[in-house]
Amino acid sequence: MAKPKNAFYAQSGGVTAVINASACGVIETARRHKGKIGKVYAGRNGIVGALTEDLIDTSQESDKAIAALRHTPSGAFGSCRYKLKGLEENRAEYERLIEVFKAHDIGYFFYNGGGDSADTCLKISQLSDTMGYPIQAIHVPKTVDNDLPITDCCPGFGSAAKYIAVSVREASFDVASMAKTSTKVFVMEVMGRHAGWIAAAGGLASSKDCELPIVILFPEVVFNREKFLSKVDAMVKKHGYCSVVVSEGVKTADGKFLAESGIKDAFGHAQLGGVAPLVANMIKDALGYRFHWAVADYLQRAARHIASKTDVEHAYALGKAAVELAIKGENAVMPAILRKSDSPYKWKVGVAPLKDVANIEKKMPRSFISKDGFGITAACRKYLRPLIAGEDYPPYNDGLPRYIRLKNEAVQKKLSAEFEVLK
Amino acid sequence: MAKPKNAFYAQSGGVTAVINASACGVIETARRHKGKIGKVYAGRNGIVGALTEDLIDTSQESDKAIAALRHTPSGAFGSCRYKLKGLEENRAEYERLIEVFKAHDIGYFFYNGGGDSADTCLKISQLSDTMGYPIQAIHVPKTVDNDLPITDCCPGFGSAAKYIAVSVREASFDVASMAKTSTKVFVMEVMGRHAGWIAAAGGLASSKDCELPIVILFPEVVFNREKFLSKVDAMVKKHGYCSVVVSEGVKTADGKFLAESGIKDAFGHAQLGGVAPLVANMIKDALGYRFHWAVADYLQRAARHIASKTDVEHAYALGKAAVELAIKGENAVMPAILRKSDSPYKWKVGVAPLKDVANIEKKMPRSFISKDGFGITAACRKYLRPLIAGEDYPPYNDGLPRYIRLKNEAVQKKLSAEFEVLK
Repeated sequence: MAKPKNAFYAQSGGVTAVINASACGVIETARRHKGKIGKVYAGRNGIVGALTEDLIDTSQESDKAIAALRHTPSGAFGSCRYKLKGLEENRAEYERLIEVFKAHDIGYFFYNGGGDSADTCLKISQLSDTMGYPIQAIHVPKTVDNDLPITDCCPGFGSAAKYIAVSVREASFDVASMAKTSTKVFVMEVMGRHAGWIAAAGGLASSKDCELPIVILFPEVVFNREKFLSKVDAMVKKHGYCSVVVSEGVKTADGKFLAESGIKDAFGHAQLGGVAPLVANMIKDALGYRFHWAVADYLQRAARHIASKTDVEHAYALGKAAVELAIKGENAVMPAILRKSDSPYKWKVGVAPLKDVANIEKKMPRSFISKDGFGITAACRKYLRPLIAGEDYPPYNDGLPRYIRLKNEAVQKKLSAEFEVLK
Repeated sequence: MAKPKNAFYAQSGGVTAVINASACGVIETARRHKGKIGKVYAGRNGIVGALTEDLIDTSQESDKAIAALRHTPSGAFGSCRYKLKGLEENRAEYERLIEVFKAHDIGYFFYNGGGDSADTCLKISQLSDTMGYPIQAIHVPKTVDNDLPITDCCPGFGSAAKYIAVSVREASFDVASMAKTSTKVFVMEVMGRHAGWIAAAGGLASSKDCELPIVILFPEVVFNREKFLSKVDAMVKKHGYCSVVVSEGVKTADGKFLAESGIKDAFGHAQLGGVAPLVANMIKDALGYRFHWAVADYLQRAARHIASKTDVEHAYALGKAAVELAIKGENAVMPAILRKSDSPYKWKVGVAPLKDVANIEKKMPRSFISKDGFGITAACRKYLRPLIAGEDYPPYNDGLPRYIRLKNEAVQKKLSAEFEVLK
């Protein structure tokens, strides 16, 4: 029997609380099919590791260490922001990849990322045809932005959504306590440059059994200063306080980001703060309400301590499915989450052709945003609720989560040539 | 037997993840001593509720609702930022308080707050002497700033510290993953206008079993731009990345807050952002490293979802002790946490005279800050470690913590006169 081909696995783009759970799914499943898949080599810092022949030998890690990836946030092998150019534009990169794959007997390519990465993965999947090198490329979806098509949701999103929903609820309780003599408005900035999925999650902080006054600013809704201020004012007059969830991607009528709408510091630089302080100061100036603001930034995508159980399960299942698809001989596909029912929540793993995934952005449907543009609808709640359901706590040592750091031992290089990655 | 006197309980100043655990301790303990203490009336929005005769009848709440306060952040009865003036300056306020206390047969005064509140509580404790109204006033310590004297730590701090330590660890893992081709420095702004206790907690993110490159900017250490930049540069050169924890209270040599050090927007306003974006941009300008920054603000003091078990236990124990001290006939005191040993961590509740607590700020000892001024020492770790130990998760519904909101029914007013609270 021929020796099974090795696999290459890499993480790409912004990391999440659960991308390592997908890595765990890939590696554990490959280990269970040693007759079909040889070693799993991880790219150190994503595809850059493949280009520079900087591979990590995951077979050096114990089963226990690999299992711990399931509860460890961030990218255990390092990620990168690097998009392969087209074959015509940079043939040298593809030739180099084939050289590296050939040197290390790699026949499977698992790429864990978002829309750009799906495009890279698609290009790799075509190497058999375009360059005559036989390889199966499977994409493992990941992005807090939740903007990939076909799959019902993207691993990483559910945990970011849960973090935002929980944080907005907690901060709303806080500002409610302070409102009588002090802070009346709390503003929280969330990620989502192009789509309001994460901002929408802020709306979950308010529920039937715990109603809270929350105003959301979506990237999908053109910012209208007067309408916004009058909404906030009405909320404060009615409830005594309110919370504002503002997406970093909110735009003005001229298509510019609100955060870049002309406010400059003394040296003429665009203002240093984000959109949260801008919105908070706008409220103070117009309405006189005292405010506090927060910018969660990396915290929202790294917060494995409050990960969604659904999200962890999705992430693991998709990593596992990717390997199973490869074993079945599939190429140029992505395992996807298909929703079978909302309540009780049921889902299964399906398969999407990569050509239908790459470079396509799933926007939030308008039907998910309330008529006035500042809230979420019942349809949106129905969609989001199961994605933040369940807790999946990591183990703790001395009050801190015990996250794994792998040995990440390098595979011995076999090529003499160096390769310079273009920036 | 005479009918027992009623008790007044109020929350003051910035709320925390565990101030309601103290309320829970007060009310549950009072309910167990009905022969000694009548009803517990809570001030709606702190002492303002006493001045305006806006009292909440906690006896209307079920045992289950009161028990749920233990896992609910924020101030369940509303807090306030309001400091009583001296007796000479505003006698009318004291006369009004006595009028309200008399009307509702209040003989016990429990005040849950920080240094300013201890001062208010002390003034109330003297009403027997100064105004001839018999009352016992007991202070229940609370502050995320951890700056009260005598007590080994302040309830609220341990949970904020745990939130910061966990968040800095998680974000550090994130930036480590991104550093090869993208973000190399993560900057996180934390609370602590005058003392670096919370900033110090960021240092716990790095531990023996999980070393991370972290640079801390303390309010206790004068900011030195060159030294700071060279420290960050050295960290990035050695580790590939680093995290910076910056206290909002960091000051320059002229005693000004760094965040207010002259950067103005186009309209001449002081810059909108906090000190985190300022520091992040400073690094970018001088060293060219890509950055991300976060400002946790209210999230750090409201994050009951990741509260420290030790902290919750302290908070409850001090609320309970306050009532027991009242029953013993004490006045003008504060129950305090006394540490018996670091490892294993052992503590007991002691008693501090309020005159030794009011208006005295406990700074961080210089021996807790490393020689170069950018880190914490072993002594600091020994002190902090038990305070963030243990998890105490709230119950969840549909992916969100189930925090209680009380009915907060008003006690019928007995006085005809209104009282206007001075702003």
